[in-house]
Amino acid sequence: MNTDSLVAQMHALGAAAVAARAPLAQSTSAQRNTALQAAATALRARQGAILEANSTDLAGARARGLSAALLDRLALDAGRVEAMARGLEEIAVLPDPVGRVLAEWTRPNGLRIQRVAVPLGVVAIIYESRPNVTADAGALCLKSANPVILRGGSESAHSSAAIYAALSDGLRAAGLPAAAIQLVPTTDRAAVGILLADMREFVDVVVPRGGRSLVERVQLEARVPVIGHLEGICHVYVHAAADPGMARDILINSKLRRTGVCGAAETVLLDAALPPAARRDLLAALLDAGCAVRGDADCQALDPRVTAATEADWSTEYLDTIIAARVVPGIDAALAHISRYGSAHTESIVTADTKAAEYFLSHCDSAIVLHNASTQFADGAEFGMGAEIGISTERFHARGPVGVEQLASYKYVVRGKGQVRP
Amino acid sequence: MNTDSLVAQMHALGAAAVAARAPLAQSTSAQRNTALQAAATALRARQGAILEANSTDLAGARARGLSAALLDRLALDAGRVEAMARGLEEIAVLPDPVGRVLAEWTRPNGLRIQRVAVPLGVVAIIYESRPNVTADAGALCLKSANPVILRGGSESAHSSAAIYAALSDGLRAAGLPAAAIQLVPTTDRAAVGILLADMREFVDVVVPRGGRSLVERVQLEARVPVIGHLEGICHVYVHAAADPGMARDILINSKLRRTGVCGAAETVLLDAALPPAARRDLLAALLDAGCAVRGDADCQALDPRVTAATEADWSTEYLDTIIAARVVPGIDAALAHISRYGSAHTESIVTADTKAAEYFLSHCDSAIVLHNASTQFADGAEFGMGAEIGISTERFHARGPVGVEQLASYKYVVRGKGQVRP
Repeated sequence: MNTDSLVAQMHALGAAAVAARAPLAQSTSAQRNTALQAAATALRARQGAILEANSTDLAGARARGLSAALLDRLALDAGRVEAMARGLEEIAVLPDPVGRVLAEWTRPNGLRIQRVAVPLGVVAIIYESRPNVTADAGALCLKSANPVILRGGSESAHSSAAIYAALSDGLRAAGLPAAAIQLVPTTDRAAVGILLADMREFVDVVVPRGGRSLVERVQLEARVPVIGHLEGICHVYVHAAADPGMARDILINSKLRRTGVCGAAETVLLDAALPPAARRDLLAALLDAGCAVRGDADCQALDPRVTAATEADWSTEYLDTIIAARVVPGIDAALAHISRYGSAHTESIVTADTKAAEYFLSHCDSAIVLHNASTQFADGAEFGMGAEIGISTERFHARGPVGVEQLASYKYVVRGKGQVRP
Repeated sequence: MNTDSLVAQMHALGAAAVAARAPLAQSTSAQRNTALQAAATALRARQGAILEANSTDLAGARARGLSAALLDRLALDAGRVEAMARGLEEIAVLPDPVGRVLAEWTRPNGLRIQRVAVPLGVVAIIYESRPNVTADAGALCLKSANPVILRGGSESAHSSAAIYAALSDGLRAAGLPAAAIQLVPTTDRAAVGILLADMREFVDVVVPRGGRSLVERVQLEARVPVIGHLEGICHVYVHAAADPGMARDILINSKLRRTGVCGAAETVLLDAALPPAARRDLLAALLDAGCAVRGDADCQALDPRVTAATEADWSTEYLDTIIAARVVPGIDAALAHISRYGSAHTESIVTADTKAAEYFLSHCDSAIVLHNASTQFADGAEFGMGAEIGISTERFHARGPVGVEQLASYKYVVRGKGQVRP
């Protein structure tokens, strides 16, 4: 498609989304929940068509030689379709994020002031080849009454279109505007550039969900606000006063429960004040569980299976059964390492020393800081916030898990009795 | 200065600000308040030097033919210096915005989760020739533990530098890093472009304070998050069920109490269901008070002093004794007019009909919506939020008055007892 007509097509999506803002903002919670439940039903009813579309995507992806990991992310089966449907139902039963009174107070002059949650506006979500994001992200935006423009990866285009049909069924069943959820119908990569830089008048916020190259492109090109999700270079710091058994359990869980999630630990920092045997046992536990360890000279001296870490290892998100390991001379050195090499996502200190823990929790400037708990709790559902669109590594607007409450803005409602300002 | 050395100079400011982040975040509330009080004392002690610097600026501005309104914004006297000093003292006694527990809950697995306010990061404030912004904005950022880079208008450069010296005295007195508050020492306009687009690695948020041309430049060039302050095209809508006396008082106050503030009304919408005599009286009250009225044909028919409004009048921020006036066929027409021509800043409905009021408050998508109260209450201090850096017209991060609490981000602090994720 030539650029002019692509721009026109994208602007038409933008204008339709803007037109859906007011009706969506004024829709009832019951209407939006009905749409989500009907979409779940439609997902189940359309399972055959979705799996067929997915086969087409998988065949194309295999022909293009995609990695096994990417093929796994792309692949759907009956269980994954059912999980998507259940995800929509879980979002339907969350409390309505719109209209919540976030704060209220009365002024000495009698003015009653409320800060009330309102939708954020038109959201554009740019993601890679996980077809389930079409359902999850569409549902989270619908729940929060934000019109959304979804742009999925080209490898999953058929799957996303089939899933999108179910979301459209849901909107229709509830009498909501079709443009409440839109899927960019072209796989032209130029569409992403237009969404990022040429739709300021239509798009209120862009949410990238994907790997480093997508996030970097968004950061470079975006001319609209972004809720960014950087990689998670998460640390477990085992303090001198750590309980050895607890440290082992937390370390193994943080690294190995699931290695492909952003909350998985990528580096372990061992305090030099830990007895050498304790340090050795921790590394051995990782190695025995099948995890490769890339360590500094101190760690290499503890176990011959530890290979040498390079400078790049300290800032690598492996998402694999590999961990970087370093001995640090104390809590300030641990904090300095995290500040220098981390991505300000999630870090955990293991210690029985409450004072050291509080020092770490206060001084560590990451979105999520934990004491004596696994980094794999970095997850909206685990926080009790319901489904999330990702873990924001921004400091602006939303930090940490981005659930429906974070997909909101607010306004001030002021009720008076004729007050004028002196 | 050549571009390379200007970039180097600006990057040095940025690096110094980043280095001040951690010490400022860990400083105590008492330390920051001491700095603010010492700065107030220094402002009073330096009054002579400040007024002398201001004379230099005023002479330069007169020579360049600046308007009387701009000269008035630029001019300082003993009273204005004292007001700045008192402003700092008022900020010193506000509650500490950092470290507040915004929410806390315990999960079924025993994890205790807190959402805790933390500083937002390095703030860059770009403003025009109001020297008092140097003191106000510097103080608000210091209170909220954010390093700030101030870039004032070139016309006020000498005044800002003299005021800045007092802020530096305050930082020194409290043992805080000098780079907690920095003033861009060059009046080169290219410095603004560098702040907006070439300091991503140093600056977390840009706050423009100024007229439309500055805001437009920022929106066009900024590659970092912005807390924008658009103009205030504020409306008073006099509903059919309005009390005539209350409507007159609110209208006169909204327009004329101070015409130069962003919360001043710029358009009045009169409901067609109001008796013609009531509409005539409202326009007469404005005209008799010395306000020019630019109206549609209906308004012109009510009073011969009303001149014809053009399309441009509906979206003009006069900041003067001029108001646009229109008769609308009902509440939905009023909302449609506001949505089309307004800036989503502040609007007021005057009515004795609670149902109509609630409909307006719910459907009007502006940062501040009022019922039976003057639009001139659009002000952080009037809201009880203390001093503010402006009224944000963004939907993202902060909307409405931006006080110290809005200059914050948050993080999640999670305390466990060895929990791992199943």
